Amino acid sequence: MRSSDDAGRRLDALDQIEAIKRLKHRYWRACDAKDPVTFRASFIKSGARIDYGLLGTFDDADALTEVFCQVALLTVDGSYVIFDMHHGLHPDITLTSGTTATGRWTLQFRQINLLDWTETLMTGDYDDAYVVEEGEWKMSACIFTERWSLRRPLGDGAELHPGTFVT
Amino acid sequence: MRSSDDAGRRLDALDQIEAIKRLKHRYWRACDAKDPVTFRASFIKSGARIDYGLLGTFDDADALTEVFCQVALLTVDGSYVIFDMHHGLHPDITLTSGTTATGRWTLQFRQINLLDWTETLMTGDYDDAYVVEEGEWKMSACIFTERWSLRRPLGDGAELHPGTFVT
Amino acid sequence: MRSSDDAGRRLDALDQIEAIKRLKHRYWRACDAKDPVTFRASFIKSGARIDYGLLGTFDDADALTEVFCQVALLTVDGSYVIFDMHHGLHPDITLTSGTTATGRWTLQFRQINLLDWTETLMTGDYDDAYVVEEGEWKMSACIFTERWSLRRPLGDGAELHPGTFVT
Repeated sequence: MRSSDDAGRRLDALDQIEAIKRLKHRYWRACDAKDPVTFRASFIKSGARIDYGLLGTFDDADALTEVFCQVALLTVDGSYVIFDMHHGLHPDITLTSGTTATGRWTLQFRQINLLDWTETLMTGDYDDAYVVEEGEWKMSACIFTERWSLRRPLGDGAELHPGTFVT
Repeated sequence: MRSSDDAGRRLDALDQIEAIKRLKHRYWRACDAKDPVTFRASFIKSGARIDYGLLGTFDDADALTEVFCQVALLTVDGSYVIFDMHHGLHPDITLTSGTTATGRWTLQFRQINLLDWTETLMTGDYDDAYVVEEGEWKMSACIFTERWSLRRPLGDGAELHPGTFVT
Repeated sequence: MRSSDDAGRRLDALDQIEAIKRLKHRYWRACDAKDPVTFRASFIKSGARIDYGLLGTFDDADALTEVFCQVALLTVDGSYVIFDMHHGLHPDITLTSGTTATGRWTLQFRQINLLDWTETLMTGDYDDAYVVEEGEWKMSACIFTERWSLRRPLGDGAELHPGTFVT
């Protein structure tokens, strides 16, 4: 028989796992909403270990955020020219202590580039680590393993309609 | 130390959040299965506040269901001509009382239109509200913010294979 | 008022549902990582009831795994030629006893075939059954209902970039 104390601890653990999922969901939404503030705040303050494959390896989220801004916020004649979909699936989160956790996810990524008129479609898996920093879960490591990607011309007649972005 | 009563309340809250997620999952499945009954039943009986962007703004789910039927059930020579994917991701649900809640989601949407031979791909985020009506969670508000969409010709050689639909 | 014992049972049920979700997530990741061992281990040892529509009907996961290997591991001149995305969404899991459960999911499937230079995009819903076998949740039934699929030529200029696979 479990005590109510034990139930409280198990409920706390479930709450932590949900909080980590929400962190990742906010992060992916921020990517596609062109929101560098929420993007940056998803990582620990300093020293995050990030390996995004072909996009590069980083030992701090500031450097990654710079790359993010260069791509996501790039404009030509006042209009955005690069549009992303970061859609995260298949979570598998494991708490390793009260303030640390690991996680696996699958990403479906798409990028429309109006400059070279291409579409890139990519999939792969994340191996993450998370820590609590000032009371909130943050990503401390994010290692991406690409399974495969496909790049192709957008072709004649494609029309990109930009909607609402944060910036 | 938490009491067992408190554990029961927290478990009830987790159950409610899961029920809301299942509501949305049923709704999206109904969209693509061409099932207007389940589609309509996902919303409150009257007065739902719906803003689906370019698709229109509605102050009741009956009007939205009519538009859904006009599109999803459209046939030419006895065959469906419009095929959708509504794939929902990135849930973030907050209970605001025992019978009300809010939620954020990301949508990946695709539509194949055999009449004008186009494919539309779209992504954006939902800001939802939910209420319990006659013991079941329903959508009372659904506000969609489009991030971007891409429309393009299907091109030569594309073949659409219809499967099984509810209607 | 619920007893702490009851809270323990409800928490156990939530843990089981999460374990089933993780099983499916591992399964889909294994599909796209070309990992037949994890693929096979997702099903019961013998007698799984599998209906994958056009891909075939199977009364054991060994036969399905053979088909999986024929497709996913096919090489020409030492290079893989078929690349999949199995992205699962919209879970709805119901425990039917301490060791049995049912589930519904939506699948977004994509296959790039470099031999015939086509892309296939497909969606549909799973009706699953799960059982505990030697202490672990496994799929005992997996019935897929296809909604629709689209096959088209990859077109000129498409470039497939293979990443890292398990085998």
